[in-house]
Amino acid sequence: MMELKGLRQIAPYVPGAQPKVEEMIKLNTNENAYGPSPKVKAVLESFQTDSLRLYSSLDQAPLRHELGQLLGVNPEQIILGNGSDDILSMAFLAFFNSGEPVLFPDLTYGFYKVWADLYHIPYREIPLNERFELETEDYLLQNGGIVLANPNAPTGIYKPLDELEAIIVANQDVVVIVDEAYINFGGQSALPLLDKYENLFITRTYSKDAALAGLRVGYGIGSPKLMGVIHAVKNSVNPYNVNRLSEEVATAATKDWAYYVETCQRIVETRDWFSGKMAELDFEVLPSKTNFVLVEHARVSAQELFNHLESQHIYVRYFPKTERIANKLRISIGTEEEMQKVLEVIDQYLSTQATL
Amino acid sequence: MMELKGLRQIAPYVPGAQPKVEEMIKLNTNENAYGPSPKVKAVLESFQTDSLRLYSSLDQAPLRHELGQLLGVNPEQIILGNGSDDILSMAFLAFFNSGEPVLFPDLTYGFYKVWADLYHIPYREIPLNERFELETEDYLLQNGGIVLANPNAPTGIYKPLDELEAIIVANQDVVVIVDEAYINFGGQSALPLLDKYENLFITRTYSKDAALAGLRVGYGIGSPKLMGVIHAVKNSVNPYNVNRLSEEVATAATKDWAYYVETCQRIVETRDWFSGKMAELDFEVLPSKTNFVLVEHARVSAQELFNHLESQHIYVRYFPKTERIANKLRISIGTEEEMQKVLEVIDQYLSTQATL
Repeated sequence: MMELKGLRQIAPYVPGAQPKVEEMIKLNTNENAYGPSPKVKAVLESFQTDSLRLYSSLDQAPLRHELGQLLGVNPEQIILGNGSDDILSMAFLAFFNSGEPVLFPDLTYGFYKVWADLYHIPYREIPLNERFELETEDYLLQNGGIVLANPNAPTGIYKPLDELEAIIVANQDVVVIVDEAYINFGGQSALPLLDKYENLFITRTYSKDAALAGLRVGYGIGSPKLMGVIHAVKNSVNPYNVNRLSEEVATAATKDWAYYVETCQRIVETRDWFSGKMAELDFEVLPSKTNFVLVEHARVSAQELFNHLESQHIYVRYFPKTERIANKLRISIGTEEEMQKVLEVIDQYLSTQATL
Repeated sequence: MMELKGLRQIAPYVPGAQPKVEEMIKLNTNENAYGPSPKVKAVLESFQTDSLRLYSSLDQAPLRHELGQLLGVNPEQIILGNGSDDILSMAFLAFFNSGEPVLFPDLTYGFYKVWADLYHIPYREIPLNERFELETEDYLLQNGGIVLANPNAPTGIYKPLDELEAIIVANQDVVVIVDEAYINFGGQSALPLLDKYENLFITRTYSKDAALAGLRVGYGIGSPKLMGVIHAVKNSVNPYNVNRLSEEVATAATKDWAYYVETCQRIVETRDWFSGKMAELDFEVLPSKTNFVLVEHARVSAQELFNHLESQHIYVRYFPKTERIANKLRISIGTEEEMQKVLEVIDQYLSTQATL
């Protein structure tokens, strides 16, 4: 067989495992503890399956209309995608072509680096400070664009809006992407800044607050200038990127947002209660405004705890190859019952360790 | 406002219009005249909506299993995507990195050129011959890869498998993508060649034969070596690219393939009957193995006919900016009733023209 030329060598993103175990507590990919809006079921039951023979919409006008109402933005400023990964991937292609390095933190959503590599975009990873916070002044240098998750992942830490604005205002010659995947768990959105800054692009997802990770719907919001560019890229990658079922379901979910305000509030309450309990068990818990917490025990290693939890069919996330957080565990916030169980398992394990 | 740097300038793909008119006959985007398998409705009605809170599958094992059975290939050789556009876009990123020009016909799926531009891949468009056929010898030169739709679009012309094999065998140092979007309307698939050629990558879609254009599911099939490369790219673009609903629906459709064999056969019969009738009306009809025909009238211009059909709420595709086919119309094959109506409208229009 001849040598094949032209094959791409690349180090891909590594998603969290999707274990197929009955009766597990799955807290490893920041899924929502509660199901989607009950309205979703009705949509699927009454869906006109024959319509699937026709291509899906190119502009998702009804969904953008509902979203515009909910967010208080012009629907023309919204673009939909197959998850916010789709939107972010397109945004990298659309906005980062200057040849100068794009900036993002050393600890953040692992995919930013992967897209930059994939699309040959130079980048610089800026270390978070020793408290795992994002320092404003680190983003005031010459660059080809900025990507910040706010709140950040996997730290869970939220950067106050006035500090974020200082970065946006100082970088008006490049696009600043603010990834708000977790914004509805206690942070304040950058949406009000859209009217002031043409260089701001915000991404959102239905995977976390809207409990629709399996539906793959995300969106981006930006100025008319940025919209023109990202729409051209969308129409150069995959114009029919949101299927008919996803659009209908997301529209129904958006119309029932009061349900999500309530379930997100329950997650926030569980998170804060769980964080306190973990601190009592000698964990350092980074202050989270997301649906997960990043924790480290004073004495027991992350690997030990990870293995023990796994043996009890409790799945959390662990980043052994990422030096700064190699001894931390990222635990998604499940239901109160699930977190109570996690606390019991950990408490029991720690007592065994203490008496050994 | 400061000048923004890094914004991408690109000429996107232009999809067919999606007119929103009641009582129209829509024959402009090669959608399937018949609805999807009746099994699809049951899947949606019994779907566990709560499962949408969890991420979709990373590997679509059940769907790949069904597809493997249907196609007689190892499921490990199949990769699923958000429509075959998603698969093709990833394949361009995965396979065409040699720096040498990728070859495809001057008249083919318009997206090949767009992806090549988007990803900075050099390419050469090779003119089809004067009968709009693909000449084997044109693809026997040094290149960085080859992309061929078989049957081709918008011509509808099928290239016999032995001729296609001659191209694959002569280009074993590069990847040859065969886009089989329309293969189940009368062509012979290149699937049996997979065992012989490591450089062959076949793409398929549920949009045409399976009447699920609105579901956005497509797939690629190739050697284990190619699979490794395209999976790494998938995990560098959007690992959860197929949502839970699409996977379930596509699996049900695949299990009910006998239904599609029958509906595709009806479309083939309608196409052949319609082609004959059009020839009687003085149209030149390219020989089609797809669910559309490309036609040109001996006297009346495409533009005139296009406008008249549109005025009667019959939507077809017309490519006025593509010189070689600027006077042709591409007409998707609808139901027999729809095509009867099209013939009547055209016949009537032509008689009016003759008597003027």
